[in-house]
Amino acid sequence: MSQYRVLIDANDEKGIVYKVSTIFFNYGLNILSNNEFVDYENNKFFMRSVVDGDVDLFQLHKSLLEILPKNSSLDVIEPKKKNIIIMATKEIHAIGDILIRHEAGELDANILAVISNYDKLESIVNKFDIPYITISHENLEREEHENKIIECISKYKDVDYIVLAKYMRILTPKFVETFKDKIINIHHSFLPAFIGANPYKQAYERGVKIIGATAHFVNNNLDEGPIIAQEIIHVDHAYSWKDMQSSGRDVEKVVLSRALKLALEDRIFVYANKTVIF
Amino acid sequence: MSQYRVLIDANDEKGIVYKVSTIFFNYGLNILSNNEFVDYENNKFFMRSVVDGDVDLFQLHKSLLEILPKNSSLDVIEPKKKNIIIMATKEIHAIGDILIRHEAGELDANILAVISNYDKLESIVNKFDIPYITISHENLEREEHENKIIECISKYKDVDYIVLAKYMRILTPKFVETFKDKIINIHHSFLPAFIGANPYKQAYERGVKIIGATAHFVNNNLDEGPIIAQEIIHVDHAYSWKDMQSSGRDVEKVVLSRALKLALEDRIFVYANKTVIF
Amino acid sequence: MSQYRVLIDANDEKGIVYKVSTIFFNYGLNILSNNEFVDYENNKFFMRSVVDGDVDLFQLHKSLLEILPKNSSLDVIEPKKKNIIIMATKEIHAIGDILIRHEAGELDANILAVISNYDKLESIVNKFDIPYITISHENLEREEHENKIIECISKYKDVDYIVLAKYMRILTPKFVETFKDKIINIHHSFLPAFIGANPYKQAYERGVKIIGATAHFVNNNLDEGPIIAQEIIHVDHAYSWKDMQSSGRDVEKVVLSRALKLALEDRIFVYANKTVIF
Amino acid sequence: MSQYRVLIDANDEKGIVYKVSTIFFNYGLNILSNNEFVDYENNKFFMRSVVDGDVDLFQLHKSLLEILPKNSSLDVIEPKKKNIIIMATKEIHAIGDILIRHEAGELDANILAVISNYDKLESIVNKFDIPYITISHENLEREEHENKIIECISKYKDVDYIVLAKYMRILTPKFVETFKDKIINIHHSFLPAFIGANPYKQAYERGVKIIGATAHFVNNNLDEGPIIAQEIIHVDHAYSWKDMQSSGRDVEKVVLSRALKLALEDRIFVYANKTVIF
Repeated sequence: MSQYRVLIDANDEKGIVYKVSTIFFNYGLNILSNNEFVDYENNKFFMRSVVDGDVDLFQLHKSLLEILPKNSSLDVIEPKKKNIIIMATKEIHAIGDILIRHEAGELDANILAVISNYDKLESIVNKFDIPYITISHENLEREEHENKIIECISKYKDVDYIVLAKYMRILTPKFVETFKDKIINIHHSFLPAFIGANPYKQAYERGVKIIGATAHFVNNNLDEGPIIAQEIIHVDHAYSWKDMQSSGRDVEKVVLSRALKLALEDRIFVYANKTVIF
Repeated sequence: MSQYRVLIDANDEKGIVYKVSTIFFNYGLNILSNNEFVDYENNKFFMRSVVDGDVDLFQLHKSLLEILPKNSSLDVIEPKKKNIIIMATKEIHAIGDILIRHEAGELDANILAVISNYDKLESIVNKFDIPYITISHENLEREEHENKIIECISKYKDVDYIVLAKYMRILTPKFVETFKDKIINIHHSFLPAFIGANPYKQAYERGVKIIGATAHFVNNNLDEGPIIAQEIIHVDHAYSWKDMQSSGRDVEKVVLSRALKLALEDRIFVYANKTVIF
Repeated sequence: MSQYRVLIDANDEKGIVYKVSTIFFNYGLNILSNNEFVDYENNKFFMRSVVDGDVDLFQLHKSLLEILPKNSSLDVIEPKKKNIIIMATKEIHAIGDILIRHEAGELDANILAVISNYDKLESIVNKFDIPYITISHENLEREEHENKIIECISKYKDVDYIVLAKYMRILTPKFVETFKDKIINIHHSFLPAFIGANPYKQAYERGVKIIGATAHFVNNNLDEGPIIAQEIIHVDHAYSWKDMQSSGRDVEKVVLSRALKLALEDRIFVYANKTVIF
Repeated sequence: MSQYRVLIDANDEKGIVYKVSTIFFNYGLNILSNNEFVDYENNKFFMRSVVDGDVDLFQLHKSLLEILPKNSSLDVIEPKKKNIIIMATKEIHAIGDILIRHEAGELDANILAVISNYDKLESIVNKFDIPYITISHENLEREEHENKIIECISKYKDVDYIVLAKYMRILTPKFVETFKDKIINIHHSFLPAFIGANPYKQAYERGVKIIGATAHFVNNNLDEGPIIAQEIIHVDHAYSWKDMQSSGRDVEKVVLSRALKLALEDRIFVYANKTVIF
């Protein structure tokens, strides 16, 4: 008996649940969990079912595709470790949290490599027997630098996600396009507030009473990709912007790890620059 | 076209979703939202579907019952205002919040009456043109007092819920049994901590850094019924127990109203002294 | 024995605490609570002391002023009910919460009047025996309308705060200037995100996972005054913008009441478009 | 110019602030931050001042002691790294978080050693070049086992805190007495709920909607020492107790690190089985 995740992203039509559950029934599959969402405004249907049974995966996929509306997106996935590459710069908290979770066996992922534009995190990453590749951006045009990174990543097969664990450089549209819907970023603010540089300083100067962090997929518009998870903490007047940054880091690492876990469990659908999360 | 809420509480069997969605499809019903949960440990299946269409309610109920496992619990409900009776003592915050929400049209409920053992809240309740009945407990045995309340309530037809909005007297098993699964209480603590009298004072003396409130159905064991909703706020050493009580009231009213809303929308299933909430 | 609140906003100098506490000691005052904050970046000192004793208020004020740096701001206040005027439009939740708290004796305030551009809330406000004045904006230039409101407010003496409990019209600089640092607004978003019209719709379209509310003083730049309090709740993809609005209202009322309470207790200092809150 | 933390725990008397600030003034000290709290019920005064200047520490201490009420507790501390020993069992999340923070330079502490009753965490701890000592409890009486641990700890000088990062064995009164007010524990529940074994299972069975964690000093009554910090997360019916445990771990590590940071910054006063935290 195997377990499968069935992911459906379709135009909404009457009877989809009926048709899908009929196929599950005919294939003798047991439904372990079932989530559905209909966005009536956009006439969109989303479904994530976890089923178990003993089936020909190819046949099941084919049968489901036959009954789904045209242009539906369908995935039938056997859960397994996903391959991720982490990009970072100098800060340790976000990548450190992922390394510890990975070591604890909490993350259903293989960390193929860590790529950074500095060598600062090399010793900590190496402690965990994960390859660390420094690709300095110094004396390079932005595109040259990214080409080197793309070349480096291309050596790894089947990269499922690229996790930006406080990678502090702006990505070009070309880079984003190369890894479309695969790049997860942690933004050190409660988006869409304080887009851009040094959000903690911006937050401090605005005198906010709450600071937050946002994990999101990266698209071509900086800080404007689909939001996966957000969290906040309360601050007060006694926080300098350095204090806000320090407290903010605790939120950042929690939110990034939460988003990564959702991605690894195939719980995120992206559409209309938003996410549906089951 | 009408809207219906279909509520199923059954022993889990393979194919329930298939069978139920087949019936929905055959009746030409459109699924607006669908929630399912399987408790494998206890082999229990729960489903809440909101559907719309044009059906014979009696026939739909019958068809569904035929395909469900034996001893299933099934409700097919046309959404309408539920009838509630509020019981209170002297504090205004919890009942006040319900009155304002009711006035704002936020609550899908008719407030039939407010019953209290004091007359303190009479003027505020009367402002909202809701009957206020004082049934003093003075010089009465507990059971005598409750019999008067039961008699009072029995004059109202189709009472869906009795909301204890800081009703500060312990109910006898007889009273609870009379209105089984219909009594919603707000307990001024984060249950199961600080069961019993004056939880804020207990919390203060224990030096906790968080206080909370719990909305729950009432069963025969005081403060031990199924939990519907909980919320907390942070406190510190500078809070006296009176301060904790005052801040706690803000949490109490929020949690009670949240629980009441869930009940009015038929989103709560009760089993094994717990709740499943869709 | 009386209680006094001493509020000091001064340029920072060595020895202020020493000099102030020397005066308290010499006057035989007992310090009930003491809060200080120094903003080193701006060289600013803030202090709020609650003291009790039996003094000549005028003398105490004079003595303190003598030892404080030049251009210091000093208030010595005997706690008493503050006078507030509420402005609202059509929504009941924020004003309703204030009315109930007022009725419960929780607010150290006299509500002198409610002013609205609609008559929708008249019946609920009148239930609480508070004057309700409808000043319609129809067929009036913005300034004409505001002049009528200013005229109406000017009939009341000693107005301490004007509370905008979801007053949905933009105020002109003239109005804001007339009641400088006296206007408290609740903004239905987590500022500075979603400034401007219909923030819940903006939030929905951006696909955020958290929505919030911000209470702030009003200055000439819409939505950009000093922030007093903020709070948030989590939402998900299943929330329509109407759902977000509905949930958001629960946050709005909590945050506005929290900010009002801080103001009534003289706990807020304003400077550099920020607040220091003790 | 040096910075000092002045910590006062005294019986409350009129004029303490005056007298202390007079001494600061006379010594030419600048007050960087100042926190005071008076517990009127117990007639207790607490103060934490951070001052800078150039003084004879011994003289300052002496001068302060002269003006403080009898039996006052006074500390004048030059901030420096504190020495901590971590005790753990098998779980990695709490100790992992501390190791990463330590590596990031966030903790003002030297980690002298990690002691565990299993060798499971040895490889991860060794990655950080910290001594790991396995002291198995197998075939040992509880006291024998603890004596070995006490002996091991006694080899280290000036141990400021012992951090129980999910050390899963109950400590005897003798052990607790040996390190009085020095042992910080993370309890995997929102104390005082679910005292004792397997709180997540207890929480699951009770059907709570919130789970939490509590960092506290350890005293002789298990789980009943002074609370330092608490935090919670929301859960629902779909969480198995294993899910609760997994989510709970994220809270545990955050709360333990927060409590440790407060201790390292000398921000915690303990009295009456409670904490005052500045």
